[in-house]
Order: sequence, then structure tokens, then C-alpha cells
Amino acid sequence: MALPIEPPLHRCTVRGDWVDYNGHLRDAFYLLIFSEATDALMDHIGLDAAERERSQASIFTLECHLNFLREVKGGAEVQVSTQLIGHDAKRLHIHQSLHVAGEPEPACVCEQMLMHVDMRGPKSAPMAPEVLARVQAIAAAQAGLPRPVHLGRVMRLPGA
Amino acid sequence: MALPIEPPLHRCTVRGDWVDYNGHLRDAFYLLIFSEATDALMDHIGLDAAERERSQASIFTLECHLNFLREVKGGAEVQVSTQLIGHDAKRLHIHQSLHVAGEPEPACVCEQMLMHVDMRGPKSAPMAPEVLARVQAIAAAQAGLPRPVHLGRVMRLPGA
Repeated sequence: MALPIEPPLHRCTVRGDWVDYNGHLRDAFYLLIFSEATDALMDHIGLDAAERERSQASIFTLECHLNFLREVKGGAEVQVSTQLIGHDAKRLHIHQSLHVAGEPEPACVCEQMLMHVDMRGPKSAPMAPEVLARVQAIAAAQAGLPRPVHLGRVMRLPGA
Repeated sequence: MALPIEPPLHRCTVRGDWVDYNGHLRDAFYLLIFSEATDALMDHIGLDAAERERSQASIFTLECHLNFLREVKGGAEVQVSTQLIGHDAKRLHIHQSLHVAGEPEPACVCEQMLMHVDMRGPKSAPMAPEVLARVQAIAAAQAGLPRPVHLGRVMRLPGA
């Protein structure tokens, strides 16, 4: 079987109970959508539920940084694309971009550092060779993509 | 009435449906707890639901950065403390620290940039003088606090 190329788009519909008193998608539920997109990435590199159960391997989020750029309303159809920024034997550094379907500009972007873990600790652990090979295939396929503009951003007040 | 001093601790119990396939609090639900702590901060500075309705003012999250430091299990009692890092007429830059009750080290920290908005746009807008006065009272009360260690952190792979 050929190795997978780029991670597939993750798609979902914004649920009514994800909308807050401001009448738009609450900050935490943007991250829930990104988190589900990370689950889709795990499936894509061979760490689906059956393999997690078999191998006792999983992925933990170490860190993430979100930039909320546009409001998203309940009922909106959204999609998340994932770009692999870097990796080593244990870690994936990714950037995710959430778009309302048909909109050219992202509504939110998310940078994440993920850690491959052996759940028997849990403790950090190198990826299995077949998982790492899939990660390397994504890295090769995405090598020409531009660097996302919000990557490594430090938040500060204007003038601070 | 005296102006409020430091924001109160926000407390909650980790719900079973916030736990993921790794058997711990899912990343997005840490942010939901921080988001509810931000709601408590809004109440504290006078932007509670009744005042939001009256004045058509609210707060939007522009950006946030989370560091996941320790696992949190379902049923845990957690509390969030909030430190005001900076502010101007329209923005609050805050740092939140989530602790499992009784644990000295945080399980997660969150840096946020918040924007005061006029919901009739919605567009950014200066805080009302009485709200700004409460923010200034918090800043004065917290002036001696040390700078949180994760503030302004840029995520990168080791050696990158």
C-alpha cells in the first residue's frame, strides 16, 4: 500500500451548544474542532483506535496556540487543513487552519506540539517505524508549502 | 463600594464527558475551564450578563496559548487563578493557572489576549470608565506578582 500523502481535510458542522453568549463559536470549541482534526491526523498516520489499543501508543498535546481571526456562527460548515511543520522521533509540530466552507481566509489558526507516548507510563516514546514512515511521507509531500504567518507568534499589547 | 481587588478563584469539577480516549481531560476542555474562568473575570470587572445586555458590551478572545503540564482525570476538583499581565483601553492580557485542588504545581497554564467589543458592530471599543477602573484596581493589587514562566513562549522542537 502506498504511504499516505497529505492529511485529509477534517469537516464538521458547528453545533448549537458550541455557541456562547456572544452568539458565536466559543473559543474552547474551536479547539475541540482542531482536536478532532488531530484525531483524524492520528488515524491517517496509523494511530487509529484499534492500533492505539493494540500497541498502547497514543498522542498527547503538549502545547497549543490559537489565533481567533473571524467569528463563526452556529450551523456553519467548517473544515480544517493540517500542515506538518516539523517532527522528530517523538514529536509532531503542526499548524491547523479552520475555514468556513467557501471562505478564502481562515477563521482561526492553531499551532500545536504533539508528543507520542507509551500509555503504559504514560511516558514519551519514539513512534513505531511504520508510523514514522507515514509522518515522513507527509513531510515530503508538504515540503514546498509556505510557512504559516502566525507560527511562533508572541502575543503582546500594541506598543508593549 | 470599594473596587474589587484580585479576581476570585474559579472552581469546577472535571466532567466525565470531558475525558477522552487517553483517559484524561481532553485539551479543548482545559480551554473550556479557562474560558469559564474568563467569564468569572468579566463578572468581576462589571461585565456580567445583565450589564452585557444593558450596554451591548462584551469581551472576545483574540488569541490564547496553552501549555499542558500534567494529566487531569475525570472527577478532579480544579481551580483557576488569573493574573492580569497588562491592559490598555480596549485589551486585557491575562495569564491563568489551573491547579488540581491541593496540588502545588499547575496542571495547565493559559495566556490570553482579550478584546473589549461593542456588540453593535461587533467592533473593538474602549471599556467604560467604571470597568476600566476595576481593571486598574486589579493591576495595582497584582503589581508585585512574578512574571509567569510560560509567558511569551514560542513552541519549537528541541534543537530546532
